[in-house]
Amino acid sequence: MRIIVDGMGGDNAPGAIVEGAVLASERIRDDIYIIGKEDEISAELAKYDFDESRMKVIPASQVIENEEAPVRAVRTKKDSSIVKGINMVKNGEADLFISAGNSGALMAGGLFILGRIPGIDRPAIASTYPILGKGVSMLVDSGANSECKPRNLLEFGIMGSIYMDKVIGIDKPRVGLVNIGAEENKGSTLTKATYDLLDKSDVNFIGNVEGRDIPLGACDVIVCDGFVGNIILKLTEGLALSLSARMKKKFTDGVKAKVGSLILMDKLKGLRKDFDYSEYGGAPILGVKGPVVKMHGSSNANGVMNSIIKAVPYAKEGVVDIIQSQVLEIEEIAESE
Amino acid sequence: MRIIVDGMGGDNAPGAIVEGAVLASERIRDDIYIIGKEDEISAELAKYDFDESRMKVIPASQVIENEEAPVRAVRTKKDSSIVKGINMVKNGEADLFISAGNSGALMAGGLFILGRIPGIDRPAIASTYPILGKGVSMLVDSGANSECKPRNLLEFGIMGSIYMDKVIGIDKPRVGLVNIGAEENKGSTLTKATYDLLDKSDVNFIGNVEGRDIPLGACDVIVCDGFVGNIILKLTEGLALSLSARMKKKFTDGVKAKVGSLILMDKLKGLRKDFDYSEYGGAPILGVKGPVVKMHGSSNANGVMNSIIKAVPYAKEGVVDIIQSQVLEIEEIAESE
Repeated sequence: MRIIVDGMGGDNAPGAIVEGAVLASERIRDDIYIIGKEDEISAELAKYDFDESRMKVIPASQVIENEEAPVRAVRTKKDSSIVKGINMVKNGEADLFISAGNSGALMAGGLFILGRIPGIDRPAIASTYPILGKGVSMLVDSGANSECKPRNLLEFGIMGSIYMDKVIGIDKPRVGLVNIGAEENKGSTLTKATYDLLDKSDVNFIGNVEGRDIPLGACDVIVCDGFVGNIILKLTEGLALSLSARMKKKFTDGVKAKVGSLILMDKLKGLRKDFDYSEYGGAPILGVKGPVVKMHGSSNANGVMNSIIKAVPYAKEGVVDIIQSQVLEIEEIAESE
Repeated sequence: MRIIVDGMGGDNAPGAIVEGAVLASERIRDDIYIIGKEDEISAELAKYDFDESRMKVIPASQVIENEEAPVRAVRTKKDSSIVKGINMVKNGEADLFISAGNSGALMAGGLFILGRIPGIDRPAIASTYPILGKGVSMLVDSGANSECKPRNLLEFGIMGSIYMDKVIGIDKPRVGLVNIGAEENKGSTLTKATYDLLDKSDVNFIGNVEGRDIPLGACDVIVCDGFVGNIILKLTEGLALSLSARMKKKFTDGVKAKVGSLILMDKLKGLRKDFDYSEYGGAPILGVKGPVVKMHGSSNANGVMNSIIKAVPYAKEGVVDIIQSQVLEIEEIAESE
């Protein structure tokens, strides 16, 4: 398999990207191509020993910055790492594209270059959501579609279920609908209609999940519109941050506390690791005609390595084709609405 | 001032309610009436010494349970503690009603018995949201209105700002709009239109706040529709729960960890207290013609006491009248949309 890694995306590019790619290359046997400004990437690569038969640089002269308007950037910067990299997946020159760059540009690139899987109305970003001590759930959609129809949420549930099964390896993943009450008839017009659709589908639909249940691991696939998904993802990040700042302050306040913290050091570090999204891999864009994965913008080398390794089954297991094979079911259920 | 406390609402009623009312009565000089089944409440009251001139039982023969459909319950159970209590506020026999009971019934009671403040389209529940180490923000709406128009969110911002100023004592509270991007043009149709309205209002509008910023205390009044608000509130509760379970597991795993935890005991307890909503008082229903406050369903005596004490300024400061005085402004801004 041939994996293209965007050498120019993310807060720590190209250094952490190149280092992460080298680390990944030591652990998997697939080819890794790093795309971006050739001189910058080669200079970073020169710092490491690596298997030159499985790793090379693909030159791309332009960079899409985080602040750029995604659609315009994708349309004008034809020789950017994102546009060129996704084009290589489209043309069969590579099997997977992974980037820590501009999320909107990755989604726009997926939509305009690869195109939607026919029958999928709204591709989505599926983010990993860490369940403390219990692995990970997938949050679909985590921010691409701020306004959704019931059919879109049905698509998110089915695509997320396939990904969770084939890539993360969870058998019959439990699909839950984010709602503001546990009973079937609760919630908004959107969630009530979506409940009926998911209930008719073949996924392992366990019904509504409330905000309180999500961090406890109530379901494996967390289905919601991209507005709610983005709030869930970022609120969790913010809470982890504020809590860790608060603990640091409390646990270093006075000699006694410092001694206690020192004794608990490894446990505290473990707690931090629980919240480290990079442990769990990147966020696939689901519903486009080829595997594109978004890494966290602040990924360090370790996060990049993990994201590359964990993304491999997205291409290898033929997730795009499996989603394609479910489109008829989606159409039938959506028409019954 | 005369405060009516619902003796029958909440997981720990009537015991914790009566005990909390007695504790509150020792700290404030206002009259406290406990409403509900006379024999049960009197039996609880008999356990304590209290000033009989400032505390009495109001008999109400019916109870609205948590599982009951709110509108139907309010319409049929005329002698329930909730319906009778809110009627006493309406008739001027009391100044404030506070309950840990069925939230929907409290909202329905507020709407049908007291009525909306003329010009307020959608009353909302405003919940306290703890900011670790920095006090509290108000989340409006936290669950009453799952689908909203921009005008409703404008109302939430203005009402929340008044409450935060008059009851919590924050001068010029910073009002933030929950959104999935910091820039003005980000988000859904609803948030884009709401941004313009809040920007035209007299509140101290600081713009969009993302999920990540909320727990860090980015604003004093967190404005969103009730669907998003409910998810924010419950997700935060769920995360606090799962984290505290995780810490407990890690910090008691092995002798060394147990020693460290013992040394840090007071700090760990302080951390738990930070997340304890009951410290910060109950959730006012804003936009109805009289002060009604919802306490957390699982409130213990201490939570009940705090909620009663902290609710007093809602009536004393004339918040309902102040909201009423802002209605013309709301109308003008909403019409400019």
